[in-house]
Formats: sequence, structure tokens, C-alpha cells
Amino acid sequence: MTTRSYAIIGTGALGGYYGGCLARAGCDVHFLLRSDYEHVREHGLMVESCFGDFHLPQVQAYNDVSDMPACDVVIVALKTTENGLLPALLEPLARESNVALVLQNGLGMEAIAADIFGAERVLGGLCFLCSNKVGPGHIRHLNYGRIALGEYRQNGEPAGITPWMTDIGNDFEQAGIEIIYAEDLLLARWQKLVWNIPFNGLTVVLRQMTDRIMANAASRELAEQLMSEVVDAARWADNRQIDPEHIQRMLEDTEQMSPYKTSMMLDFECGRPMEVESIFGNPYRAALNAGYDPQRLGMIYRQLKFLEANREA
Amino acid sequence: MTTRSYAIIGTGALGGYYGGCLARAGCDVHFLLRSDYEHVREHGLMVESCFGDFHLPQVQAYNDVSDMPACDVVIVALKTTENGLLPALLEPLARESNVALVLQNGLGMEAIAADIFGAERVLGGLCFLCSNKVGPGHIRHLNYGRIALGEYRQNGEPAGITPWMTDIGNDFEQAGIEIIYAEDLLLARWQKLVWNIPFNGLTVVLRQMTDRIMANAASRELAEQLMSEVVDAARWADNRQIDPEHIQRMLEDTEQMSPYKTSMMLDFECGRPMEVESIFGNPYRAALNAGYDPQRLGMIYRQLKFLEANREA
Repeated sequence: MTTRSYAIIGTGALGGYYGGCLARAGCDVHFLLRSDYEHVREHGLMVESCFGDFHLPQVQAYNDVSDMPACDVVIVALKTTENGLLPALLEPLARESNVALVLQNGLGMEAIAADIFGAERVLGGLCFLCSNKVGPGHIRHLNYGRIALGEYRQNGEPAGITPWMTDIGNDFEQAGIEIIYAEDLLLARWQKLVWNIPFNGLTVVLRQMTDRIMANAASRELAEQLMSEVVDAARWADNRQIDPEHIQRMLEDTEQMSPYKTSMMLDFECGRPMEVESIFGNPYRAALNAGYDPQRLGMIYRQLKFLEANREA
Repeated sequence: MTTRSYAIIGTGALGGYYGGCLARAGCDVHFLLRSDYEHVREHGLMVESCFGDFHLPQVQAYNDVSDMPACDVVIVALKTTENGLLPALLEPLARESNVALVLQNGLGMEAIAADIFGAERVLGGLCFLCSNKVGPGHIRHLNYGRIALGEYRQNGEPAGITPWMTDIGNDFEQAGIEIIYAEDLLLARWQKLVWNIPFNGLTVVLRQMTDRIMANAASRELAEQLMSEVVDAARWADNRQIDPEHIQRMLEDTEQMSPYKTSMMLDFECGRPMEVESIFGNPYRAALNAGYDPQRLGMIYRQLKFLEANREA
């Protein structure tokens, strides 16, 4: 197994699952925790997974980032709603030669890590994962798990597939995690937004799962209109071309899926903060700054901001 | 008192209140009922009103329009969601010389009556009324009651204030109902839509009353954007100019109002059909047909169509 060491910044549904998989495979993994720290230090980490349950009785747990060693790869696995905490968490961990891997949703998520680690030492990863934290140090992994890895570039150009990307990718694959490599991280992020914006948004605002959204002609048309706006926004903001066939394929795939509660719908139902700014606000502002006003995207963004501020509804 | 006779087509929250007021004042009023027919024939009509309760122990009640006499004024007081029934209800009542008064929400509501009575014998009325039916033949009038009366013109031109408009208006005023006269019915309808579209729509989709919509910067801005689209739609579709100051005045008035549940929010909460087509669909299509696409109006229209079709949510 690799000699690379990993720091997991945020041991929740996502960081707990991926970090747990890496640790189980023999990687040197260091977990940053908050409320679960005492529990995990005593009892370790429990991962119930659709791919097979496992328990790590002893994990390297920390409740203060300044106690953590200088890991080779620092994985940012916080929810984006907590990114205000991120500079203070990352600064003590940045060295001359280590790198950050940002496993967060939405657009522009690599910028904080790039400021601290240097723009040439940041990877982004798009996670297709369905996982929840169901108790202290207790992760329930329900489905999927693939990560699309791509290298960050400050100038927004595609980075291609670089050796250190595949080195880290190999560690994940040996830990049983499916990896695909994105030659163009920014394109991959926009492509994911083409799905995430309509379906995270509409499942929250309309309070129904994906199957109902697809079954109704009006909401299906609205999802398609939102997708078109995201495709246009990608072109205006970052000069990324997404084939309109991508929209039709995603709509058909969504129709075939079993009824799905998006992560934002789960957050909303459980009263947890929603990732409104990373998934909606950042792409919306990127388009506006480039001279394009995606009106429907702006509208669902405002509706979500209202719902976020009026949670007792 | 007048010698004009009135037919009330739809004795609900609105028809029961206005018809009750006219009957109390001594007008010859004939009420069409469905489910409440037996009850009202036996017990009459009870109006609890913020302006003073009254009971009409005997009213002229009908459950079949073919039994009704040839009234001078036929008041259309059905909910617009039932307009499919309207031709069959109005045809037996149209004579050479009588007129229809359409007291319905939204745009295009006079067309059915104009087909049957003739375009030159239709009035429209915009009701600012807060009233509910709380039991058989039992109306609870909570607030307001003003009607803006205007004469219909098939060519969409303003009709001015005509003698028969004021004759009918006088009957209402003598019955204690505040009347204002609209020289331009179509302008009045669009002006009302400038408020109804954002606030009926957003209170349903966001499930909060007007005060919360106004208190949140994102939803307030969205309300203002929707209002601007309705102002633009009025210009495109019907060449009606609404002063942008009208928007600011309405926003300020709404901010000053006590928390208000719109009629559509009440319908939604109570599982009753919502007037989605008359208030949203018709203005949206009028704008589209004129070459203007109000995207946010189209979006909230589609969201409401979804919610209407998924009521158990």
C-alpha cells in the first residue's frame, strides 16, 4: 500500500466514508472531528455500507488541527456551508510539498485551498455518493461512491490527467472506490451542475422526489429550462461547451432512476443547512459577472435563500 | 330601492356575501346553489361580517338555473376553476336586454359571458374582499369588500364610465358595498395582477404569508422582479402602461399590511383548487402570444401547476 498520508478535514457522511475506506485499505489516515471526537477516539469508526459493513476500532482522531501531522494529502470534506472555517483549518496543514483534494459540491470550491496550498497543488473531486451520518462516528453508506478527480488551474484551463492525480486516484481505487479522471475539472463541475441545479432546487422548493418532478409536464419542462440555463451559464462564465444532448440524456436517466431524494432535499427535511451558495449562488454570480442573466436560476436561488432563512415552515 | 333583479351564479364566499348584502338592502336577488341548496332553502343565508352580522331567513334559492327568472343582472361569482360549467349556466339566463357582471379573478374572465350575452353587455368587477364560506349557507366576511367596476370591450379599448355601470354601482353602494369605477377594465385587471401574481404565487410556493416574503431580501427582490415582468407583460400583450411607481407603492403597502394569507394560499392549505390558469396561465400566454417571454412568471406558473397536481405534499 501507498506511503502517502491523508488528513480528513470533516469526518461526516462523506469524509467518514472515504477516509474510512482508505484507512481500512491500510493508508495512514488522520481524521479531524468535532462533536464526535470523544466517541470516535474511544470506539473508532463504524461504516455500514451497501458494499459491505466495516468497523475500524482504532482511528487516528483529532479535535484540533494543530495536533495533526503534516499529511501528504489534505482532503477537504466539510460541507460548503462551513467554508468560513476552512482557512483556519487548512493553514496549519499546508507544507511545501503536500496537496489539497477538495471533495465539495458546487462551483469555486477550490479557491480557498488554492490560496493556502498554492494554485498548482489543488485537486478537485466530484463525488457521486449517497451517504449519511446516522450517529457519532457512525456512517451509513447507501449507494454509489464514484469520484471524478480533476486538477485545479487558477486560469481555468483544462489540466489534463497528471501523474500525481493518478497516484492519489490509485490509492482510492485500492481502497475500493471507483475513480474516473476528468481532464477538465471546470467542465466536470458545470456538467454536474446541469443536474444538481434543477433537481436539488426543485425537490426542495416543490417538496417532492425526482420521480414526481419528472412525471409532471410543467415541472419536467422547468427542469429542462433550468438545465439549458446552466449550459448557457457554463459557456458565458467559463467558455465551456456542454452538448445539449447531455440535457436529454440526464432527463432520461432521471426518469429511469428510482425515486430519489436529493442531498439538498434531505438537508431541508432534516433542518440542516443547505449548500445554496456553492451550488446556486456561485454559478449564478459567475454568469451575471460574464454578462448573462439566467433568470430562472436566479429565481430558484432566491427561493432557496428564502427557505433557508425560514426553516420552521 | 332599485327595481333591478340580480342572479347570483355561485353562492360561495364571494357571491354569498355580495348577494346577501344586495338582498338585505331590498334588491330582488336570486341565488344559484349546489350542495347548500336544501340548507339555504330551509334556513336562509347567514353572513357574519366585520361590518355587522346579518341573517336572511328566507332567500330565493335555486339548484337549477332553468328555474331562475330572467334577472336584469347576472353576477358570475363562481371560482374560475369551475368556468367549464359556465356556458351551460349562463345560456338559459341571457335575454335581449340583461347584462352579466363577472366578479372573477385574473385575466380574460369576461370572454365566456361576452360570447353568451354579447360583448356590449358585460361588466367586469375586481373584488378586494376577504371572505370565506365556513358552513352551508354560512359566510364569514373578514375584511375589505371594495369592487372596482369596469365595462368590457371586445377590442380591448377603455370603455370609460357608462350610465348602466353607475346604475348597477349605485345598487351596490346602497347595499353598503364600496364601489370605484374603472374607466379601463383591462388596465385595472393588469394592475391587480401586478400584486396577485407575486404574492399569490410566492405565498403558495414558499408557504409563508406576505410579511415573511417582504422581510427577506431575496424573496422581496423576487416579488419585485415578478411585478416588473407583469408590468412588461401588460405593455406587450395589451398596450397598457403601468407606472413603475405602482410597483414601489404596492411593495410598501404590502410591507405595512398585517401578515396576510392570500386566497391562493388558503386554497392550497385547504386542499381546494387554485386559480392557476386565470391568474397565471392567461397572463403568461397573453405575453407569449405577443412575443414577450416573462421567464419568472412562466416558472412560478409551472411550479403552481406542479403543486396543484401533487396536492398531498
